[in-house]
Amino acid sequence: MRLLFLNPNTSTSLTDRMASAVRPYLAPTTELVPATAARGFPYISSRAEADVSASIVLEMIAEHEGDVDAVVVAAFGDPGLYSARELYDIPIVGVAEAAILTACAVGDRFGIVTFSQVMSTWYLDSVSRARLDARFTGVRVPSQPAPPSGIDTVQETLGDQLVELVDTAVTTDKADVVIIGGAPLAGFAATVEDRVAVPVIDPVVAGVLYAEMLVRLGLSAPLKGAYARPPAKPSIGLPPALARRIGGPIDRLS
Amino acid sequence: MRLLFLNPNTSTSLTDRMASAVRPYLAPTTELVPATAARGFPYISSRAEADVSASIVLEMIAEHEGDVDAVVVAAFGDPGLYSARELYDIPIVGVAEAAILTACAVGDRFGIVTFSQVMSTWYLDSVSRARLDARFTGVRVPSQPAPPSGIDTVQETLGDQLVELVDTAVTTDKADVVIIGGAPLAGFAATVEDRVAVPVIDPVVAGVLYAEMLVRLGLSAPLKGAYARPPAKPSIGLPPALARRIGGPIDRLS
Amino acid sequence: MRLLFLNPNTSTSLTDRMASAVRPYLAPTTELVPATAARGFPYISSRAEADVSASIVLEMIAEHEGDVDAVVVAAFGDPGLYSARELYDIPIVGVAEAAILTACAVGDRFGIVTFSQVMSTWYLDSVSRARLDARFTGVRVPSQPAPPSGIDTVQETLGDQLVELVDTAVTTDKADVVIIGGAPLAGFAATVEDRVAVPVIDPVVAGVLYAEMLVRLGLSAPLKGAYARPPAKPSIGLPPALARRIGGPIDRLS
Amino acid sequence: MRLLFLNPNTSTSLTDRMASAVRPYLAPTTELVPATAARGFPYISSRAEADVSASIVLEMIAEHEGDVDAVVVAAFGDPGLYSARELYDIPIVGVAEAAILTACAVGDRFGIVTFSQVMSTWYLDSVSRARLDARFTGVRVPSQPAPPSGIDTVQETLGDQLVELVDTAVTTDKADVVIIGGAPLAGFAATVEDRVAVPVIDPVVAGVLYAEMLVRLGLSAPLKGAYARPPAKPSIGLPPALARRIGGPIDRLS
Amino acid sequence: MRLLFLNPNTSTSLTDRMASAVRPYLAPTTELVPATAARGFPYISSRAEADVSASIVLEMIAEHEGDVDAVVVAAFGDPGLYSARELYDIPIVGVAEAAILTACAVGDRFGIVTFSQVMSTWYLDSVSRARLDARFTGVRVPSQPAPPSGIDTVQETLGDQLVELVDTAVTTDKADVVIIGGAPLAGFAATVEDRVAVPVIDPVVAGVLYAEMLVRLGLSAPLKGAYARPPAKPSIGLPPALARRIGGPIDRLS
Amino acid sequence: MRLLFLNPNTSTSLTDRMASAVRPYLAPTTELVPATAARGFPYISSRAEADVSASIVLEMIAEHEGDVDAVVVAAFGDPGLYSARELYDIPIVGVAEAAILTACAVGDRFGIVTFSQVMSTWYLDSVSRARLDARFTGVRVPSQPAPPSGIDTVQETLGDQLVELVDTAVTTDKADVVIIGGAPLAGFAATVEDRVAVPVIDPVVAGVLYAEMLVRLGLSAPLKGAYARPPAKPSIGLPPALARRIGGPIDRLS
Repeated sequence: MRLLFLNPNTSTSLTDRMASAVRPYLAPTTELVPATAARGFPYISSRAEADVSASIVLEMIAEHEGDVDAVVVAAFGDPGLYSARELYDIPIVGVAEAAILTACAVGDRFGIVTFSQVMSTWYLDSVSRARLDARFTGVRVPSQPAPPSGIDTVQETLGDQLVELVDTAVTTDKADVVIIGGAPLAGFAATVEDRVAVPVIDPVVAGVLYAEMLVRLGLSAPLKGAYARPPAKPSIGLPPALARRIGGPIDRLS
Repeated sequence: MRLLFLNPNTSTSLTDRMASAVRPYLAPTTELVPATAARGFPYISSRAEADVSASIVLEMIAEHEGDVDAVVVAAFGDPGLYSARELYDIPIVGVAEAAILTACAVGDRFGIVTFSQVMSTWYLDSVSRARLDARFTGVRVPSQPAPPSGIDTVQETLGDQLVELVDTAVTTDKADVVIIGGAPLAGFAATVEDRVAVPVIDPVVAGVLYAEMLVRLGLSAPLKGAYARPPAKPSIGLPPALARRIGGPIDRLS
Repeated sequence: MRLLFLNPNTSTSLTDRMASAVRPYLAPTTELVPATAARGFPYISSRAEADVSASIVLEMIAEHEGDVDAVVVAAFGDPGLYSARELYDIPIVGVAEAAILTACAVGDRFGIVTFSQVMSTWYLDSVSRARLDARFTGVRVPSQPAPPSGIDTVQETLGDQLVELVDTAVTTDKADVVIIGGAPLAGFAATVEDRVAVPVIDPVVAGVLYAEMLVRLGLSAPLKGAYARPPAKPSIGLPPALARRIGGPIDRLS
Repeated sequence: MRLLFLNPNTSTSLTDRMASAVRPYLAPTTELVPATAARGFPYISSRAEADVSASIVLEMIAEHEGDVDAVVVAAFGDPGLYSARELYDIPIVGVAEAAILTACAVGDRFGIVTFSQVMSTWYLDSVSRARLDARFTGVRVPSQPAPPSGIDTVQETLGDQLVELVDTAVTTDKADVVIIGGAPLAGFAATVEDRVAVPVIDPVVAGVLYAEMLVRLGLSAPLKGAYARPPAKPSIGLPPALARRIGGPIDRLS
Repeated sequence: MRLLFLNPNTSTSLTDRMASAVRPYLAPTTELVPATAARGFPYISSRAEADVSASIVLEMIAEHEGDVDAVVVAAFGDPGLYSARELYDIPIVGVAEAAILTACAVGDRFGIVTFSQVMSTWYLDSVSRARLDARFTGVRVPSQPAPPSGIDTVQETLGDQLVELVDTAVTTDKADVVIIGGAPLAGFAATVEDRVAVPVIDPVVAGVLYAEMLVRLGLSAPLKGAYARPPAKPSIGLPPALARRIGGPIDRLS
Repeated sequence: MRLLFLNPNTSTSLTDRMASAVRPYLAPTTELVPATAARGFPYISSRAEADVSASIVLEMIAEHEGDVDAVVVAAFGDPGLYSARELYDIPIVGVAEAAILTACAVGDRFGIVTFSQVMSTWYLDSVSRARLDARFTGVRVPSQPAPPSGIDTVQETLGDQLVELVDTAVTTDKADVVIIGGAPLAGFAATVEDRVAVPVIDPVVAGVLYAEMLVRLGLSAPLKGAYARPPAKPSIGLPPALARRIGGPIDRLS
């Protein structure tokens, strides 16, 4: 099976970091197909940046359609997730959604720990869209922001604070399981599991495992309901692959 | 006051129809500044199209920033609404949100009537994001879809069915007030109020009146919270006005 | 347009204070018609007082019916709001509801800051009745109550504390926008917007602007649903104007 | 124990009917003290009438305070319930609330059957205020309204229809238990239990039993929280007993 | 009336303590029939222990069926409550549910204070199953656990801490009424009511009073809905009385 | 990896049917370890039967502990799920929960289709415990019950009706994805995917794939929170393996 591991950020170092974090978990027959956004932002961290990147996600999938068995959108916040499900017949996984749904099979309540306050709102949206607010204990972030140059080194510079925040999420917020959010923290969960009192979930790992599961489950594409393909629609000024996908014949039914 | 009346669709006839529908309601000192998307879709009707159009909305506002006092995003579903609020300091109004919040001051429960099943999911998202599901009685659409060529004539061809659906929303679904959704139906509510038993809300009218209200209320832009401006961020391949807005100096604080 | 600006409290100094606070925001063609309760309490601050005052609100509207285009019930907590909508065909606005619905177009989550613990429960009711608990971050009040003689001077004596509480609502409770509740605080929001980090809403101002918006929207009165006029009903011992309104012919249908 | 059995309607025949319905259920040592409103409406059936009657309820309790051990507000919809709890130290029971809380110990989901559409909204408020919407299957009313002169004979004229509606509530709406709402239906539940497939609850019976239970439980009056007595407050134009209660010394603390 | 007062724990000292706590509240004609589990745990304090004990509850009721008028399951958490309602035609009361439903007639929001963190999750389940999370302010437990040998003396060793926690529940969590959870705390509420500012509910007392109320209400057993008796079912290896109850003829319908 | 595929029913033919349904989906290195309950019911179909079976599930896991890497509780309704998570350190998967969480990554709203009304309540509990009611469109069952002897042939006798019910779930209830509930329907989903318009999920398949995913994810066992192992507890009369598990030393911490 081939998984499009789609980084909607333009930073290839993030793609590499995330791909390294997930590879040890893949089934032997799974091939990871990493892709980095050619336009957009080095690191999405607001709703506006996510909204802009949603189109980019749709374009990137269009470019790989037919060549992969599923897609993992590897940015916490899952830009373009529902739209991609509408347009494409293969499983589309968002790492935030996958982490949340995995957490719900592990504990009653889950918390999120991440490294920057800026992204909190964007993260809350993921929980609300999943309608799981009742099981959510909140986001915890370090009181001091990461050094501005420091996305690449945030695991080192903020590591101890993050471990403490997991404990706060458990002790104060009553989380049973904690999701470690944010692409720069890919791989961090595995390194700290001995230092924390509850399971910690790495969204990118949850994402690829969820994608493998859905591919093996082999569900049909919907012909009705919220994710049935919308009728073909002409467009102006869209990237060609995406314009074709939206405007072309709907072969799903043939 | 100048209101950017932003049609995220590329159809100028829709812009004209909507602008005509709202003009009679404007205060004498309000100037409507209609704008039609230069790229995108003739008529957005799915989540994917809305996601693509969200970027376009952000770009269009960037082009008019400094020249208008508020923005009305004139497409039910409000593409880019929350992101625009994050990026811009003037009031940003979505016509779906404005219609919903207006309905909540008129009845306990509101329904939506529109002309096409395809858009239902997109509409439901607006209600859920507002967290008002508990006051929502559902979407009602004609059992027969509009003729494919017929967006421009849908008020005539489906008018009687839509009036009946308002009655169904009231009698069966227990709505106290009904929102008439969809840009091609702009102006329709005013023409049928004598034929229906409850108030009917035209979202574009609610939108411009909400925008006027917010401009006159004169609230400050937030420096903290979900809509505080995110830190400046470099980008690749974005339209210049938007790239500048996202990447430029944050003058709000100065 | 003529707005009945109805103060359900018996204190004319509160009426004056609130009227002064809203006048700068009114459209040039709007005439404010202030009215002060002839019986009831100097300043409503509990559920029981509000319940008693609900009848008084209904009576006061009955006395002005036919002479005004809309009503603003100018007491946070909105006594008699839903009942008034049932009995009268013109728009009825409650300042709490208007503030809440306005806040929802400005931020994801709103908080309330006020000057007295006693009213908290009454305020929570307004949020719950609007079904917006999921977007509410709570009420914040000064730890020290206002001096008993001090309703008229509460803006001065508690001003600094209230500004701090807005910051607590934002920083601790995660509010994106804050409503300043309580008639004695009318006008306070406008004086502190430079000292706080988020938009602050003055309910009486939101109330009159909401009323203007609804008048201009020009919705029909409902003939069905929760706010359809109930059948005429005889009564014993009610104030004459109200008895007539409840017991008289239902001219809405004629 | 003495229970004030307070009918907020002015109809003594309703008081008699309800008192007859509950007497067989009372403990031997319980004395029922029926009271009929001296002013107000023959039969409350709208929110506005309930709002007017809330004051009347507060007054009636003031007149009996010190002479009874608990109060049962015997009108479905519970006018003045929360306010009365705030003002008085003895248990205050509303028959709608008591019926709902009793139903929740009998089935997962409860429905309401009553005889008139007009009261539906008022009934829904009782469920929402209890925050039990998730367990509520809705109100069912006869498609034909009761004959206008027929409140007193509604059990006979609509009896068969009401039995059928209980079945609809069970079979279609999935109710496990049904509340028979409306004072004119007092005593009806007991007469039809052999004709229906689920338990049927008579709110006035549930009300008096709840009141007995609370008296025997003997809880203290609250000194803090939502029902702590508000500070004494002067008033203008209120009935003397109520004015004294609200404005007098707060002896609860002494 | 005879009430089976069923202690699912194997500790007879707990049964005695709880029976002593409730006896002063019983009606003169009520006979308490205490029963202690013959197998299971000395004191249930986790979900797993509760799950194991649910079967035991069902067995114990089977042994007393026909001999009692109602059952009170006297362990906070109510093991087997819903199942017992399904199998038996007499009222089945759980002390947690009864305490919660009683609290809802006394305050807007209720909290729980108990003596051990271990049981918190199990307690939360009771609130969630009642669908009353919106009125729940949380569980408060002493920061120091009870001495391991100390279940029998927990009222003495932790009493002062528990009184402080009631105050925290009121002041910090905004509870209007507090439930004192846990069998070893039976009788504690009555001893501290003068030291706390809000009503405190003893679940076993609420349980027996609720059971008396339901017996006197005399509702029929359901023939449809969630608690209709399931069809007879053969079984292997169950205690004989329970196997008979589940597998025997369904005489309820005869 | 070895998965304990635990059938809490005593019917080995059901175990075989379910094992056959899931085997084609397993990873090559996964070994299925089927186990059938030695006591209990041929086929659990009520809450009471599920409550009795919860203990049996805990016992069966105790007997296999140390010998398997994860457990799949293969009865829709997930008896003992949360308790098992509390007692055991390996992943415990319930097929209902797994199906629900999988459905949430495929559609906005999910429905359930099954073959018998009796189990509906039990199924609803699974959705409520997951707190996903807002995404649930309800249970659909054939209007005619299965022939009493017919559990083994229900796929044949009711197949066409079930396909129609999937369509009803989609068209009327607005489900985007449908779960086919009930052990006798294992394998049915795969046979009808060409006859239905939305993805259909087989809970036992979702269950084993979820278990594989969780094993590969390799989360640590919790030391705090809702699923931390409770302190060792003595017991009377429990099956030896379970008594040891509950009462033995807590080696998880060593």
